[in-house]
Amino acid sequence: MRAALARQDQLTKPRGALGRLEEVAIRLAAMQGRERPSVDQVHIAVFAADHGVASEGISAYPQSVTVEMLRNFSRGGAAISVLAQELSATLDVVDVGTAHDPGPLPRVIAKRAGAGTSNLSREAAMSASQQAIALDAGYEAVERARAARAQLFIGGEMGIGNTTSATALASALLGLPAQELAGPGTGLDAAGIARKTEVVRRALQLHAAHCGDPMQALRWLGGFEIVALAGSYLACAQHGLPVLVDGFVASAAALAAARHCPGANAWFIFAHESAEPGHIRILRALDAQPLLHLGMRLGEGSGAAAAIPLLRLACALHGRMATFSEAGVSQKAP
Amino acid sequence: MRAALARQDQLTKPRGALGRLEEVAIRLAAMQGRERPSVDQVHIAVFAADHGVASEGISAYPQSVTVEMLRNFSRGGAAISVLAQELSATLDVVDVGTAHDPGPLPRVIAKRAGAGTSNLSREAAMSASQQAIALDAGYEAVERARAARAQLFIGGEMGIGNTTSATALASALLGLPAQELAGPGTGLDAAGIARKTEVVRRALQLHAAHCGDPMQALRWLGGFEIVALAGSYLACAQHGLPVLVDGFVASAAALAAARHCPGANAWFIFAHESAEPGHIRILRALDAQPLLHLGMRLGEGSGAAAAIPLLRLACALHGRMATFSEAGVSQKAP
Repeated sequence: MRAALARQDQLTKPRGALGRLEEVAIRLAAMQGRERPSVDQVHIAVFAADHGVASEGISAYPQSVTVEMLRNFSRGGAAISVLAQELSATLDVVDVGTAHDPGPLPRVIAKRAGAGTSNLSREAAMSASQQAIALDAGYEAVERARAARAQLFIGGEMGIGNTTSATALASALLGLPAQELAGPGTGLDAAGIARKTEVVRRALQLHAAHCGDPMQALRWLGGFEIVALAGSYLACAQHGLPVLVDGFVASAAALAAARHCPGANAWFIFAHESAEPGHIRILRALDAQPLLHLGMRLGEGSGAAAAIPLLRLACALHGRMATFSEAGVSQKAP
Repeated sequence: MRAALARQDQLTKPRGALGRLEEVAIRLAAMQGRERPSVDQVHIAVFAADHGVASEGISAYPQSVTVEMLRNFSRGGAAISVLAQELSATLDVVDVGTAHDPGPLPRVIAKRAGAGTSNLSREAAMSASQQAIALDAGYEAVERARAARAQLFIGGEMGIGNTTSATALASALLGLPAQELAGPGTGLDAAGIARKTEVVRRALQLHAAHCGDPMQALRWLGGFEIVALAGSYLACAQHGLPVLVDGFVASAAALAAARHCPGANAWFIFAHESAEPGHIRILRALDAQPLLHLGMRLGEGSGAAAAIPLLRLACALHGRMATFSEAGVSQKAP
């Protein structure tokens, strides 16, 4: 970081004139342990799973969409498929437990912890052994990222009902009431948000005794894909692999990871501020300033993918601009 | 625009879930007159010139830096050089009138309106014939962009003292006092900003009679590079070539263009909100919501260049994502 800071000060521009692009280059330099960092190689893992709580009518879309989108990922038609291709990123799609097992699908890795979670508003979302499988799914994704020589990891998610799970998890970890975090997700109206808020409130009341510990909160309130995300983030921190965190659901998983392992978030860069209203609460709690504010709310890792070019430009500027002495440019007047 | 809107509604994501990426794809579709727009071919023109007002001590850097940076552009060491290369954009650098003529430089086009402007706080910044040359420099840059089959145009600028000129111009056009717009530029301290504010205030008082008309305001208060930018933006609007507008100085030129030719700004996309405090006033006056908020304040077109990947990703998503029917994905529950 010191070497990168010293280099930034010598580049032919007023100090600080590239704003957050300077900051992100310096952070990446520190994380990668090299004066001139690079994020040419990016690995994206999208975790898909279903949620028992979907039966409470908390989503604007039917549960069948989770598997349908898994097929769409498999065929390369989803937003993250297009983004990964545009960014020349490697992309894994992991089925961590959809309600109906779609069987083998091209480009989809099956690591199923069950046929969706249990209804978290009535019982624990998953058993300890299911949680272990989902955590493993996250660890294994990071192993694949490392095998692909990734310099940066993005975790994405897909799962009808998962903003309800993420809302419950974030509420528990932040000690905030459900109504401060619950939002429209994929497109609930006001009545839908009120129903979702009530479902989360009930879940928090029911499981209060289990939610003091972040790993337990993940088990009682999480989803398989959210646990997998948390597992992947912890593995990245362990291996020193920078993470670009996506939106609301991914940030709830990052919050759980950071609470489970204080210091893990030194490896997290927050890509964007989602339109989901609870996201800003999580970002504030993590003292995170996201790079983009584009009103995105899709998930799949799409907001993180959208920020990749900024990181690449930041690295290019940091690594290749001329210094004052190389270019013979005068520095600031005394 | 209608065709692009209809397509967006069919893509496999909740409506609006890609936020501003949807909006920008739809705007580009409308501007380019095609359902699936593209900004693969980008042309960047950086206009460099000096300012007589620099003798008032309103910049943190000596005037010699303008020519030094021209050489840096020529050798490919500046921020915009690196960005253009990363983005595979064509890049022109145009000398519209530095204080000392550097003579022929590789990759630099000489279209000099003079050896820098006159001191705008004491007299008109330029003569009518000088203004005509600078406007021509802008038109010609757009001709080169069109010859290069550019689908989008970026104008950049370099000129020690040019935030003072842009502040005066924007104050005159917006009817706002200098102190609401004057900022640190490349790095003035509070005393420097106070001096700059006073210089602008004096200029506005002196030239008040000439500043009702935007073209005249450009002549009395502008710089050669600011006039060239305004000329290039007008030419883009005439030819229907989308413009990605950079920061404070570029936006002051865009404001003048939009005031000179109402409707021209239908062709402008505002890339970022600069750290220069006056920028937000100009953006508000043009009802513009910039895409990025990265605290950049370099000029050269660098903030606009940083936003190019977002436009490209927006076009890729818009053009290549599967529709609900193609992917067999269920739509929102009734």
